[in-house]
Amino acid sequence: MARTIEVTDLILRDAQQSLLETSMALEDLIPVCEDLDNAGYWSLEVWGGASFDSCIRLLNEDPWERLRTYRKLLPKTKLQMLLRGQNLLAYRNFDDSIVEKFVEKAAQNGIDVFRVFDAFNDVRNLKASLQAVRRIGKHAQGSICYLPSPVHTVAAFVDIAQQIKEVGCDSICIRDVAGLLKPQVAYDLVKGIKQKCGKGTLVNVHTRSTTGVTMVSLMKAVEAGCDMVDTAISSLAFGRGHNPTESFVEMLEGTGYECRLDMERVLRVKHHIATVRPRYRGFLDGHMGVETEIFESQIPASMISSTEIQLKGQDTGHLLQDVLSEIRDVRRDAGYPALDPPADQIIGTQAVFNQLQGKYKVLTSEFADLMLGYYGTPLGEKNAEVLAMASARANKPPISCRAADLLQPEWERRRSEAAVLPGFGGTDEDVLTYAMFPKIAPQFFKTRMEGPKHIGNEPATVDSEQPDANRSGGASASPVTYVVSLNGKEHKVMVAPVKE
Amino acid sequence: MARTIEVTDLILRDAQQSLLETSMALEDLIPVCEDLDNAGYWSLEVWGGASFDSCIRLLNEDPWERLRTYRKLLPKTKLQMLLRGQNLLAYRNFDDSIVEKFVEKAAQNGIDVFRVFDAFNDVRNLKASLQAVRRIGKHAQGSICYLPSPVHTVAAFVDIAQQIKEVGCDSICIRDVAGLLKPQVAYDLVKGIKQKCGKGTLVNVHTRSTTGVTMVSLMKAVEAGCDMVDTAISSLAFGRGHNPTESFVEMLEGTGYECRLDMERVLRVKHHIATVRPRYRGFLDGHMGVETEIFESQIPASMISSTEIQLKGQDTGHLLQDVLSEIRDVRRDAGYPALDPPADQIIGTQAVFNQLQGKYKVLTSEFADLMLGYYGTPLGEKNAEVLAMASARANKPPISCRAADLLQPEWERRRSEAAVLPGFGGTDEDVLTYAMFPKIAPQFFKTRMEGPKHIGNEPATVDSEQPDANRSGGASASPVTYVVSLNGKEHKVMVAPVKE
Repeated sequence: MARTIEVTDLILRDAQQSLLETSMALEDLIPVCEDLDNAGYWSLEVWGGASFDSCIRLLNEDPWERLRTYRKLLPKTKLQMLLRGQNLLAYRNFDDSIVEKFVEKAAQNGIDVFRVFDAFNDVRNLKASLQAVRRIGKHAQGSICYLPSPVHTVAAFVDIAQQIKEVGCDSICIRDVAGLLKPQVAYDLVKGIKQKCGKGTLVNVHTRSTTGVTMVSLMKAVEAGCDMVDTAISSLAFGRGHNPTESFVEMLEGTGYECRLDMERVLRVKHHIATVRPRYRGFLDGHMGVETEIFESQIPASMISSTEIQLKGQDTGHLLQDVLSEIRDVRRDAGYPALDPPADQIIGTQAVFNQLQGKYKVLTSEFADLMLGYYGTPLGEKNAEVLAMASARANKPPISCRAADLLQPEWERRRSEAAVLPGFGGTDEDVLTYAMFPKIAPQFFKTRMEGPKHIGNEPATVDSEQPDANRSGGASASPVTYVVSLNGKEHKVMVAPVKE
Repeated sequence: MARTIEVTDLILRDAQQSLLETSMALEDLIPVCEDLDNAGYWSLEVWGGASFDSCIRLLNEDPWERLRTYRKLLPKTKLQMLLRGQNLLAYRNFDDSIVEKFVEKAAQNGIDVFRVFDAFNDVRNLKASLQAVRRIGKHAQGSICYLPSPVHTVAAFVDIAQQIKEVGCDSICIRDVAGLLKPQVAYDLVKGIKQKCGKGTLVNVHTRSTTGVTMVSLMKAVEAGCDMVDTAISSLAFGRGHNPTESFVEMLEGTGYECRLDMERVLRVKHHIATVRPRYRGFLDGHMGVETEIFESQIPASMISSTEIQLKGQDTGHLLQDVLSEIRDVRRDAGYPALDPPADQIIGTQAVFNQLQGKYKVLTSEFADLMLGYYGTPLGEKNAEVLAMASARANKPPISCRAADLLQPEWERRRSEAAVLPGFGGTDEDVLTYAMFPKIAPQFFKTRMEGPKHIGNEPATVDSEQPDANRSGGASASPVTYVVSLNGKEHKVMVAPVKE
């Protein structure tokens, strides 16, 4: 009797986020829903990550409405989302009342499976959402953010899994967004988690195809006892995306493991997506080969790209290798968080400032908060000197408690603020949209009635606001805080005196 | 102690044949030779397959000279070629004197490792070349052509390996040009060969990345004891090409197996090839995704493409699915040869005629010869009715001896014919070029002095001669033989009466 391996297909969310900047219009995805729903997937990832942001920022589409549409079109299959723990779908901690409200509304609108992660692997940041999910009877999947570091041994990751298990979850995901999970580590991790958390603990493996080794990692994970994997149908696979669903199914033949997918339906989806994909050529990530150099840098390929774009926008493209090296140093100084939102943006920006202004001459307020524990506590020791600097400049102490414990409930305030916005629909969903994206939600509410935009077949329109490096580098007698807009996101920057 | 897995890189030959129609100019490959030579490969495949044909047909370049250049530029590493057994680098059997002369000259010009295959897996067709290779002290690698069929069980392939071993060879290659070798079969095959032929028998695995599963097959082959694998550096990998060298090396980390490649050098080669590859955009095989449908059809993806091109040229593109189905039938009727040269062309052409003219209404003389055993004897039973038809129309009996035993030595005749050609250089190498390619060698000899052409950065100039379907389909009272030019190759076609 072959053991069944369950599959979550990413084609409706992460695959297009990884390869097409989440640009795909719902109308191009609707035609594949019937086949997807009947193909026999364990779940379909349809929401979360950057898709919410992308809907309101680029597509003028209500992400809640998109979710409800998927729910209608995919009645048989569990719908899954990716949730950034206490950060929800944004880049800062929210208080528990907002987290709980979000989980409740997401479930009401159609989500069955909540995959929850925290870039710091600080399990306290998963607790509120995992528990909220379980209270309403949905599937709570806690994630390990896999990124190697000197302190991130297999044993350390297994410990994190055990902590997640203790908080309470229905399954555990080994989440490798860089594609750095090599076959032997995949095997050891799954084996270790099964041993420590119990054989019955469901384990999913999520990885990328970027380095060309992770199809083998999936095989080894299966051999070690993994229950579920993530793949994407092949017409939206490879490169910085994922391993192809069809190949995963085929490779298991005769191995004692099998998937129960209806391959005729899967192939129909493949062909439809291959047909519409050229509409999004302008968004297509051109990196479709393998990038094994990232085993050395341990920086996700997508972060390398965005750093390169950022530097080129400042005519400092020649600094790329230095900045990448600086990213590694800053990550080390910060105690080795995973390069996942929000840590990736904060560390990347700080590394750019370090290169342009001198090491830690400028601290972004986000980076200071990160050093001081206001996002979460990573596994590694922090650089004490940088920590002291952050505390002095931000004029606040480091914390060791869960960061969200310091937050005041903000639901009522956000509701009142949203209520006066033109186009506000009066729903809790709109309050949540506003709470997570207070800068762009007002504009979206205003234009929502115009309906979704199809942005395919047009050149990419990327927000290319860049910080004014000269301005932020000016010397002044004491730390001055002001706002720098970088890649469309505002950063409060503290400028320290430059010592000659 | 990790076991070392040896690597043969295909980037100088098969990788560009699979992805770029062997269009790459030597000048674009010369800059990577020093790094390749010092990277620690077991061997580098540089010659054979279609590269010889391509040199004289497209590049106006002497393939022997190319080989000598590689020998000079790659002094440290074993140079490898792919040899079609008794067919050498052409599409028909040659007598042993020519085979022996070819092996001798190839070795003199620089080849160290001869990988020999026969599409029929008729080991008698490997004997002359393997023994010639061993007589001159070079490495003789006998190949199994892997293509599944009802008769091609793992045990059957293992038997073929044992026969090759008995003929005498230095290693055995499991050669899967379609990418159909699934992980478990790879494991079982290697294990089976090691058990039957002796643990010390060196086994290489050559596969393609086409179906997305074969990196895993390489892992399983390694676990089963395989000694050597074929890969291609990633800037010329994937699609209908091969698995990336860098990923193969990385995936072994911690598994108890390792490669001893200098990755800095490998990455330099990667970057150079990535730089010149765009010059050949016009030749690039566009199929860079995975094609798992071929597990169903069991037809190599490249053959599906060439069939499609052939049909479209005759305005019969709509018949593709029927012709593919017919290819499977014709292969079955012929006793399941592998779809490798020359069987692929012969079976493909016959399948087209069957669709256009009616089943076996027209028999090409090549197909009749194939049915009658004049190319070799495959593993399966042939369709007796088609066999009788072939015998009647070709007016000759089926044979069971080795086909080349019926051939007269032709060396002297070929030498005399070549001697009178303008531009003939008087060498044995030129006689061999002429013997293998009597139609195109004369033209090449004439223009050789003009030196190699760089055909990059120009649209592909594909010979698109097509048979005149109407003409060959004309009804006549008894079989008539005439010549049809198809894809640049002439076929003698016998037209049978059409019975209404």
